[in-house]
Amino acid sequence: MKYQFLSLLLSATLLGSTVKSQEKHFPFVDPMIGSEGLGRVFIGPAYPFGMVKPSPDCGSGPNSGWLPDVPVTGFSQLHVSGTGGGPKYGNILVMPFTGPLDLQDQSSLRENETVKLGYYSVILKKSQVKTEITTADKVSFYQFSYPSAENKSLKIDAGFFLGEQPVPDSREAQQFVGSEIELVSPTEIRGYSRIRGGWNNGRAYTVYFYAVLDQPVTGYASWKGTHLYPGASTQFDSGKKTGMLLKLGGNTAAVHMKIGISFLSSLKAKANIEEEIPHWDFDKVLNQLQDKWETLFSRIEIDPTSSVTEKALFYTGLYHTMLMPVNRTGENPLWTDDQPYYDDFYTLWDTFRTSNPLITLISPKREVEIVNALLDIYKHDGFLPDGRSGNANGRTQGGSHAETVIADAYVKGLKGIDYEMGLEAMLKDATVAPGGNEEQEGRGGLTEYNRLGYVPFSVVRSGNRTVDYAYNDYNIATLAKGLNHQKTYERFIAQSGNWKNLWRDDYVHEGARGFIMPKNEAGKWLDSIPYGKSERQHPTYIYTPLTHETPWYACHWCGFFYEGTSWEYSLSIPHEIPVLIQKSGGNEAFRMRLDTFFDKHFFNVANEPSFLVPTLYHWIGRPDLSSQRIRQIIAASYNTGHRGLPGNDDSGAMSSWLAFHLMGLYPNAGQNYYLLNSPLLKQTIFHQENGKDFKIVAHGLSAQHVYIKSATLNGRNFNQAWISHDDILKGGELVFEMDSQPSTWGNTILPPLSLKQ
Amino acid sequence: MKYQFLSLLLSATLLGSTVKSQEKHFPFVDPMIGSEGLGRVFIGPAYPFGMVKPSPDCGSGPNSGWLPDVPVTGFSQLHVSGTGGGPKYGNILVMPFTGPLDLQDQSSLRENETVKLGYYSVILKKSQVKTEITTADKVSFYQFSYPSAENKSLKIDAGFFLGEQPVPDSREAQQFVGSEIELVSPTEIRGYSRIRGGWNNGRAYTVYFYAVLDQPVTGYASWKGTHLYPGASTQFDSGKKTGMLLKLGGNTAAVHMKIGISFLSSLKAKANIEEEIPHWDFDKVLNQLQDKWETLFSRIEIDPTSSVTEKALFYTGLYHTMLMPVNRTGENPLWTDDQPYYDDFYTLWDTFRTSNPLITLISPKREVEIVNALLDIYKHDGFLPDGRSGNANGRTQGGSHAETVIADAYVKGLKGIDYEMGLEAMLKDATVAPGGNEEQEGRGGLTEYNRLGYVPFSVVRSGNRTVDYAYNDYNIATLAKGLNHQKTYERFIAQSGNWKNLWRDDYVHEGARGFIMPKNEAGKWLDSIPYGKSERQHPTYIYTPLTHETPWYACHWCGFFYEGTSWEYSLSIPHEIPVLIQKSGGNEAFRMRLDTFFDKHFFNVANEPSFLVPTLYHWIGRPDLSSQRIRQIIAASYNTGHRGLPGNDDSGAMSSWLAFHLMGLYPNAGQNYYLLNSPLLKQTIFHQENGKDFKIVAHGLSAQHVYIKSATLNGRNFNQAWISHDDILKGGELVFEMDSQPSTWGNTILPPLSLKQ
Repeated sequence: MKYQFLSLLLSATLLGSTVKSQEKHFPFVDPMIGSEGLGRVFIGPAYPFGMVKPSPDCGSGPNSGWLPDVPVTGFSQLHVSGTGGGPKYGNILVMPFTGPLDLQDQSSLRENETVKLGYYSVILKKSQVKTEITTADKVSFYQFSYPSAENKSLKIDAGFFLGEQPVPDSREAQQFVGSEIELVSPTEIRGYSRIRGGWNNGRAYTVYFYAVLDQPVTGYASWKGTHLYPGASTQFDSGKKTGMLLKLGGNTAAVHMKIGISFLSSLKAKANIEEEIPHWDFDKVLNQLQDKWETLFSRIEIDPTSSVTEKALFYTGLYHTMLMPVNRTGENPLWTDDQPYYDDFYTLWDTFRTSNPLITLISPKREVEIVNALLDIYKHDGFLPDGRSGNANGRTQGGSHAETVIADAYVKGLKGIDYEMGLEAMLKDATVAPGGNEEQEGRGGLTEYNRLGYVPFSVVRSGNRTVDYAYNDYNIATLAKGLNHQKTYERFIAQSGNWKNLWRDDYVHEGARGFIMPKNEAGKWLDSIPYGKSERQHPTYIYTPLTHETPWYACHWCGFFYEGTSWEYSLSIPHEIPVLIQKSGGNEAFRMRLDTFFDKHFFNVANEPSFLVPTLYHWIGRPDLSSQRIRQIIAASYNTGHRGLPGNDDSGAMSSWLAFHLMGLYPNAGQNYYLLNSPLLKQTIFHQENGKDFKIVAHGLSAQHVYIKSATLNGRNFNQAWISHDDILKGGELVFEMDSQPSTWGNTILPPLSLKQ
Repeated sequence: MKYQFLSLLLSATLLGSTVKSQEKHFPFVDPMIGSEGLGRVFIGPAYPFGMVKPSPDCGSGPNSGWLPDVPVTGFSQLHVSGTGGGPKYGNILVMPFTGPLDLQDQSSLRENETVKLGYYSVILKKSQVKTEITTADKVSFYQFSYPSAENKSLKIDAGFFLGEQPVPDSREAQQFVGSEIELVSPTEIRGYSRIRGGWNNGRAYTVYFYAVLDQPVTGYASWKGTHLYPGASTQFDSGKKTGMLLKLGGNTAAVHMKIGISFLSSLKAKANIEEEIPHWDFDKVLNQLQDKWETLFSRIEIDPTSSVTEKALFYTGLYHTMLMPVNRTGENPLWTDDQPYYDDFYTLWDTFRTSNPLITLISPKREVEIVNALLDIYKHDGFLPDGRSGNANGRTQGGSHAETVIADAYVKGLKGIDYEMGLEAMLKDATVAPGGNEEQEGRGGLTEYNRLGYVPFSVVRSGNRTVDYAYNDYNIATLAKGLNHQKTYERFIAQSGNWKNLWRDDYVHEGARGFIMPKNEAGKWLDSIPYGKSERQHPTYIYTPLTHETPWYACHWCGFFYEGTSWEYSLSIPHEIPVLIQKSGGNEAFRMRLDTFFDKHFFNVANEPSFLVPTLYHWIGRPDLSSQRIRQIIAASYNTGHRGLPGNDDSGAMSSWLAFHLMGLYPNAGQNYYLLNSPLLKQTIFHQENGKDFKIVAHGLSAQHVYIKSATLNGRNFNQAWISHDDILKGGELVFEMDSQPSTWGNTILPPLSLKQ
């Protein structure tokens, strides 16, 4: 017994503590990476999966609120990260200023903007007020340093929101519903903002707040619409925008404010303050936030000698991955039960490939919560979400990818999930047409898909819907087989081949043979695409595998593919890659196809359907080529600058893709393995929740030594370019010997098919 | 010019003022008619279409809150009237009591319960507190008379609701989501109740309140869940039931309380109080309420020498008809625009036949508002509602009858409605499958209906869905024709004959030939019905035109018809009655069929699909037989007792059926005429909103003289047993000469078909 204990201790020491560094990881996170250009990441302070995300807002336009250079309107409490399309949230805006209470607009240019994990500060040029922000999970914390104690003003705007458009009911625009504000005492203000619409065209959601100041209000004016009412302490909701200008007393130039947020009520928001920040210590709040993140970052420890750039890229990747979805357990205004509640799945189409698998590696318990939240949404709302925000499903892009997330949880052995209910929810997607608004949830075009085996061109997004549904059907088959539902398995494993029904074998383009191409209900391939609803004119346009645009009169998400070309989607068959290779003409033809794809820039690293493609060389026995491509892509598309992300981060999708490849791992979500590539980091250690460490070491890695020559797993030769999730769970050590030349390592044992057809 | 004016004045005098009585109508209303037994009417005070409906609640079970004899739990502020299925609302319950603040349960037996229009009073047996209630539109007003000034307690329960079930997510049961309560000042309490589910399985709705007392609170205890917290002035929402017990001071034994209600916020509820009841005068509130009703009742003036019973039956009928839907303009938490907002369509399947047409006669402006609210719901929620409550569509019973309501408005020339949008909304119903939950809105089984021309038995309620959709298609054709959409007209006038696809010509039952019978997808008539989902057993049961029940394992709304038999639904073809007669074997066979229907009690006056049947004799030239049946039915089924309604009043459906027949008119909703029957009232005058009076006189009407011998319209012979809505709009006088024997009056000119096929 004693001996065994000692042995355990010893191995723990060997595997873990010798490498364990006392160095903190969180300081390497740079929230500004991806803040400019297409990245659109949230730049303010936030807890992991945190509900409150305060950030500067520069007008109503930008998705993340923040923009460089232009004036800042104020600081609102809720944001999403890395999104495209119409903005969401931006509720309860505050803005310190100096001077009289006579103007709703107090926007100002900025100086000395400083952004760190959990911390934002700026000096407002007009008023010279320094504003610092940190946050707890549901409570923002502000520290305003005014130039003098005598002239301190503050605006609280309950009517502000992002994505406002002058035209009512504009698609993807948030729409104002109502707001309210009330000065409760000299140090307390409460109210709410009720908004509908936005990117997911969701129904109304309400953001309640309770603000507490450490200095008393000595004067005030409130507004309703454009009219200012000096001395009016309350503006009730009559369907108009409301807000308040406050004059602050007290003999200090510094003012602190806590803003509790809730989706239930302003008293719940107040209770959130009392629970989370029962004090006025800014640094204490900041330290708690840093500790929360540090606990998660320390689950994946990379070589302490890695460069600052490498550390910044890696930990910022983890950081972006854990900003969303948002944990709103205890804050669900729609139903009450004992399940976790998460919102802002934005969207699973974006995150299922890398973000969810990365969360599973960092914290399986968290992923279990997320899956259970999805199932609870199914149970109460009728369908699993694909895109959900503001407490409403409301947008699908292609497949019903909650199914992949559930299947991924299943094959990776996550415990504490009712997989029978999971299968039920997946079957709802696959058998019950969503009807009505077919892009809200479930599978649009399902009736046609189930009748024809593909989605015909008359249904929008028929290309990626067919390809995605086929993979989702594979996910259903995976779960059905595991749960011994043989008939269901047989049906869906057969359906998982449906992508072939849109595979046009004889179509040759840029030397590649076979593409996913549009077909009508009658089974006819369409070279020219009819579009538009005119009865007299019959406009058409020629469709090729590179066609990206839709005609001027059709919305950009109404084409054959959502965000992408046939070149991309024809390589997006994650469950039947060997069949895909064979249909493309065999290994050599497939290699040429891939080379063309990358060399001619048909590949789009910023588009999730292409995420897996750089690793497809694995399936023709050339993992060295996969690694080569990955290195090229990272070098060309990622850096630590403000424009360091190649596209919308999409709740961390871009960032988690990078984080995986830095480690040399890449998941094929829904299947139980990771592809192995040349790491960019010399060492990675997973300190897993099950207590077992798994280490990846790249011996001899350097700028020149970028190819894997050989590998061992726990000391034994390991000649396959993939590893099962089970092997990681068991703990151990994967060691690569790196070399300057490509080798034949991993060229024979192909990644497994979980299911046979 | 002058001459014309005099002439107009003269005719106004002749038609109107000589008959106009100074007698008030509202005192004849007895809210207790239909309160016991199946009627389930709301018995408390309410404005016409009023938002607030305070009533005693006797436990959580009864749909209307009220029951005789058993203890009363308290008085909650929102109810619906005449509903079946699971209850809805019952929010924000108050209860005066005496004694210490130690018990949540303060229920008590009652004495001296008094119910009048707008007024409720009772003495609580336990405490001897007299409780009187009246109400404004959005504010309840309570007057509590305690036995002494020294011992006055009051409970406010923010967690109570009707229809609670111990099992979570029970179908049709309301489910608790959250609640909050807060003592704001010694005379003010605010909070809310958030509930989901109920009959229409709706998503969460929130009822906010603001209560104001005219005596100060001197002590209090609040609760959360089952735990009582003496001295705690606030219970925030943590997903548990909350409430408060108050000790009241002041040196009077009487306490007044106003409870403002809002669906937006408690401050809006407070604003509602300030707008509607800025005083403490109970009688003033009551008088205002009475005036509101009187204005509406005076639109239809009946013979002042009518018996008290006749007046009670008639005006209570009008009263019940105008309790719902509920005008919630300015109280919509889902969107803000300039359209009216109505909720609690409960359901249009029930009300389209008689309630909506009666509202159109009383106040076309009101009906315009209702139709515009329906269209605004379509615009924002995607589908017209059939059953809507708690701000959510959520339940259809058969057809998509908002279409009939829109068509009825159109054929009756109601102005101020965007009928093009109306047609668009109707076409959404008829062309886009609702999907997902197929009973929520739109047309369940639409895909099959549009493919096969009928709904096959594999879809629940296939019988009445087919019959109803065929009529709804006729409604679409009506509007399409009027708006010159020829192709749409042609499609839907053809589809309106779809009921024939389920008409089994050779089926004979009880001497009648031809019935709507179940058919499967392959077109095979089903004598035995397969039911249940077992793969091994194949349970069946024999289906006959009298089959009412479903097998034990199927829900009662999952049979071939919703609430009804084939005997009933086979006569429910309001647009093709001549075809129906011909298919039944001609006039004589049809007469025998009707006689059998009534004599063998296959007719169910309490079921809306049978509403039109007593008048079907008109179409075989025997209006005298229609009148005979109507008199029999009324005598047997209606009276002024507590059990005076034959079934669930269904938002006034039963009551409006009666009111029409008392006047001698009966609408065929969606078509522009009324059938004429022997009135039960000697005279009816419509004081129409267009300023023109229309009078119906039954000369010589007596217990013996119940047959129409002849008629004149504006002095000219009028030999048809129907009158167009246009003729009523023009104003004038319809005079019947009554006789003791049936005559041949009205036996040749049949009611028109609005549209030809």
